[in-house]
Amino acid sequence: MNSDTTKNRIIQKGAELVYLKGFNNTGIQEVLQAAEVPRGSFYFYFKNKEEFGLCLVDYFSSFIVSIAQKQMQQGAADPVEGLKNFFNMYIGLMNKQNFTCGCPIGNIAQEMSDLSDSFRNRIAGFFDQAKSMIQACIMEAQKTGRVGPDKDPAELSDFIFNSWEGALIDMKVTKSSRPLDVFMNTVFGLLLK
Amino acid sequence: MNSDTTKNRIIQKGAELVYLKGFNNTGIQEVLQAAEVPRGSFYFYFKNKEEFGLCLVDYFSSFIVSIAQKQMQQGAADPVEGLKNFFNMYIGLMNKQNFTCGCPIGNIAQEMSDLSDSFRNRIAGFFDQAKSMIQACIMEAQKTGRVGPDKDPAELSDFIFNSWEGALIDMKVTKSSRPLDVFMNTVFGLLLK
Repeated sequence: MNSDTTKNRIIQKGAELVYLKGFNNTGIQEVLQAAEVPRGSFYFYFKNKEEFGLCLVDYFSSFIVSIAQKQMQQGAADPVEGLKNFFNMYIGLMNKQNFTCGCPIGNIAQEMSDLSDSFRNRIAGFFDQAKSMIQACIMEAQKTGRVGPDKDPAELSDFIFNSWEGALIDMKVTKSSRPLDVFMNTVFGLLLK
Repeated sequence: MNSDTTKNRIIQKGAELVYLKGFNNTGIQEVLQAAEVPRGSFYFYFKNKEEFGLCLVDYFSSFIVSIAQKQMQQGAADPVEGLKNFFNMYIGLMNKQNFTCGCPIGNIAQEMSDLSDSFRNRIAGFFDQAKSMIQACIMEAQKTGRVGPDKDPAELSDFIFNSWEGALIDMKVTKSSRPLDVFMNTVFGLLLK
């Protein structure tokens, strides 16, 4: 196993554990055990737990953005449908996971934003990217008249993104798809009209 | 200091620390130190860290619900204004805190809902109570025609509550009131019309 593969393996196994248990609640030792990497080799790849955490944020970001781009491209003819595709795909995933875990980056945001500016800035980058993708959809949909010209695309995209993050918390609490269904009804039935 | 006072002191100091640092990230020892309670006396008052955490959820719940009731009563003549009072008061508090911490129960929900059903159920109780308060406002406002009869009060209250929780995460990430302002504009300018 070369160095690159080992590093990726630690990130992948670490991502799984942190997604399930939270960042502060996951120990380096259990990540190395899950990755089957010898005890003590963590610091060969990462300066500290924070640097490892930032790699996890990047890992989750790439994953989510690539899925979102794919889903939105499939709905390219109607950008609002593309956005709906993405959220529906995500809801399907949450169903399979029995309404656990939610948004891997939202979780780390909640835990780490007040504790580390490095985390906060890295997460802000992802939040910006996600909001921009929604904003682009709304602006495209305004061109075709699918969404009314009275809506502010920047405000509405921020609101939609944040409402989704909030719905995922409620999903974890209620262990049901109701918060996600209510999100879909309100966003696509009332706001993006 | 009698036993009751000591227990309350541990809860109060614990609440402060957990609000600042997160539940998993706060050690019992530092709570006891902050509360100036002798090392080792924690288990005299709490069976374990989980029981302590559940007491914190109750503590935060009572605090938030009592503030919300007060703010809403002040706007009793117009329930939508009462709701707006509450959120504006909360936004003022977040400004004073430099956009840190957010919702103490939302934070614990994010961290603990997948790890403990006891936490999950206790938090679900608070979520239900908060949503019901919003729902009552909407139903009242529908009677006077302030909110349109086409809106589903149960769905809309869930959506508003969750959107607020999501806006608070974004506030922590962006360290600005923009997510909260956008929440206010969208909820009171578009949804509760």
